[in-house]
Amino acid sequence: MASEPSALDLARALIRCPSVTPQEGGALALMAGVLAEAGFAVERPVFSEPGTPSIENLVARIGEGRCLLLAGHTDVVPPGDEGAWRHGPFAGTVEDGLLYGRGAVDMKGGLACMMAATLDFLRERGPEFGGAIGFLVTGDEEGPAVNGTVKLLEWARARGERFDHCLLGEPTNPGRLGEMIKIGRRGSLSGRITVHGRQGHVAYPHRAENPIPGMLRLAQALLAEPLDGGTAHFDASNLELTTLDVGNPATNVIPALATAVFNVRFNDTWTADSLGAEIRRRLDAAAGGVRFALDIQPSNSPAFLTEPDAFVGLVSDAVEAETGLRPELSTTGGTSDARFIKDACPVIEFGLVGETMHRTDECVAVADLERLTAIYRRVLDAYFPASA
Amino acid sequence: MASEPSALDLARALIRCPSVTPQEGGALALMAGVLAEAGFAVERPVFSEPGTPSIENLVARIGEGRCLLLAGHTDVVPPGDEGAWRHGPFAGTVEDGLLYGRGAVDMKGGLACMMAATLDFLRERGPEFGGAIGFLVTGDEEGPAVNGTVKLLEWARARGERFDHCLLGEPTNPGRLGEMIKIGRRGSLSGRITVHGRQGHVAYPHRAENPIPGMLRLAQALLAEPLDGGTAHFDASNLELTTLDVGNPATNVIPALATAVFNVRFNDTWTADSLGAEIRRRLDAAAGGVRFALDIQPSNSPAFLTEPDAFVGLVSDAVEAETGLRPELSTTGGTSDARFIKDACPVIEFGLVGETMHRTDECVAVADLERLTAIYRRVLDAYFPASA
Ligand SMILES: [Zn+2]
Ligand SMILES: [Zn+2]
Repeated sequence: MASEPSALDLARALIRCPSVTPQEGGALALMAGVLAEAGFAVERPVFSEPGTPSIENLVARIGEGRCLLLAGHTDVVPPGDEGAWRHGPFAGTVEDGLLYGRGAVDMKGGLACMMAATLDFLRERGPEFGGAIGFLVTGDEEGPAVNGTVKLLEWARARGERFDHCLLGEPTNPGRLGEMIKIGRRGSLSGRITVHGRQGHVAYPHRAENPIPGMLRLAQALLAEPLDGGTAHFDASNLELTTLDVGNPATNVIPALATAVFNVRFNDTWTADSLGAEIRRRLDAAAGGVRFALDIQPSNSPAFLTEPDAFVGLVSDAVEAETGLRPELSTTGGTSDARFIKDACPVIEFGLVGETMHRTDECVAVADLERLTAIYRRVLDAYFPASA
Repeated sequence: MASEPSALDLARALIRCPSVTPQEGGALALMAGVLAEAGFAVERPVFSEPGTPSIENLVARIGEGRCLLLAGHTDVVPPGDEGAWRHGPFAGTVEDGLLYGRGAVDMKGGLACMMAATLDFLRERGPEFGGAIGFLVTGDEEGPAVNGTVKLLEWARARGERFDHCLLGEPTNPGRLGEMIKIGRRGSLSGRITVHGRQGHVAYPHRAENPIPGMLRLAQALLAEPLDGGTAHFDASNLELTTLDVGNPATNVIPALATAVFNVRFNDTWTADSLGAEIRRRLDAAAGGVRFALDIQPSNSPAFLTEPDAFVGLVSDAVEAETGLRPELSTTGGTSDARFIKDACPVIEFGLVGETMHRTDECVAVADLERLTAIYRRVLDAYFPASA
């Protein structure tokens, strides 16, 4: 079956589908075709919700028994100024060993490697390989993430599908393939503080009440002490004030209101609830007579950790065998759909080098596509030993 | 000469001129007519400057020798929602002993009393009263104050006019006629602080630099210590942060820039220059590694004081004789054109009760108009003793 497409062929074909969220762009249809041809049962659920665009998704499965889920997304962030790109963002051009295009590393390249490895595995082992392989792919990871992985997992559970482990193909390596596996992610919590004062003329401050000094006090109280010192697998939680606004254009007027917004990236010391309570405690303790309101935004980004176990070891071994690097087990960076998948089964992430993701001239080394395919292939071999 | 207009007649006639800055509205023409009729030489210079509206003004003089200048403005602030007024803001309606209208106390009422007192004085003493009386009236006090008193004083000086003392008729009494003479005013200084950071994603704070903590530090440094403890005739200087803005709509982005604006109302401890230097010193001392810029706006509002002397005593005596109150000698409140006149001659301020100024239903007690006229009349009598 030398006619099987390579990871490069698949990555290039996916890049040529202009699947900027929420557009499907042909990318999921392409995957559905490739997987169905390989013997997968493929489903293409579309999810919608008022106020958000409808989103196409894909679930595929082959085999019976212990199931390894390969997960990812075909949607990409917009290319920005296309004229600034060395090659068209949807052209899939290869130059000097690099494949250029939006999604090259985040994460059409990763999906291409997953498919290439799976086709190769099935060619060698046949459909009776002693387990099951699933694909769970959304078109709503870079957008609001409402009609994607969350609903896809609900949909699968309702149909009785279950998964034993998941490997998510996001770009996890900062600079070099093999450096880093993500075994968890920090949570994210945002909130708004409003301080109320009383407007008046600067010449008569005793008749007014400036909300800004109170806001300074509350803001300092949030920043004064670290939230924690980090945990075994996590950095210290970090709070950033992302904005602070009064919007008073008149130099001779004391304003009535000041607002600030914060975001916390938090580790497994906290749940969103316990962290919200700590923030309120700090503000209350510092407030004195300051009249303020705290609005914590609902969070769907908890901190989570997949404890290093045999599955993590198996993936680490596969990475090391191909790259010579023992990958760091990390929980750094932003959020990903792993935060949803972790409720269905243990999930870890390993993919390409993220350096160029979301940037002009996003690109991937063709050699990295080949090596990542070989790594995924080793994961499949180890997960489904031929002796079983 | 019972046909002379009363202060009430004059105040009502002035209120009926809709002289919202920069409109003359007939108010200066009315004054010019009254003063010319009483024997004054009247001039009506119009001043202009690129980017500002042209403004009509009035200078009048009668007599020779030692000159008492009576000063004020005919322009008024806008009435706001006219429907919210009990009586039309330009109707000049009297009800229950109160004259309603925009400018009733700030300060068409004061100008009316000055004219009524002067007409009465001249009727009794004739044009050879042993001195000179001047009127200096602008239509640009409530606006940018560019084409008003400043240029009027230059214009008069260029023509060789000089004045010995000035009485400015702004509403100086907080609640009751006779309570307060203003013998100086605090200065005003504004500036802007910009803190520079580096934009980035909240998940990667080490790659970004949030300007907000630096801004909190600088803002606290400005507020930490009082600027001074006040002086013999002045309250302590007061700094207000009037706005603080970042304007970042994205909760997952660390912003690049934060700005704050402050205004200081300062006493005679400071000049605008020495105060600006102190503010810079405080910011520099607190800055550490914070990258910031300080832009101090040019100030035309110095702190000034007319030391209590025989003239202040003469006006205080006149107030006490009519009201039974010994007026407090104060430097509180906002700025006024006295800050410009003080360079031409000693200036103090005494007028009506300011409670309703700049508000809906601005009004003055008719009895106050009569008493203020009597006070001004006593000032003229004492300034130009009949024995001289
Ligand atoms: Zn991604
Ligand atoms: Zn005024």
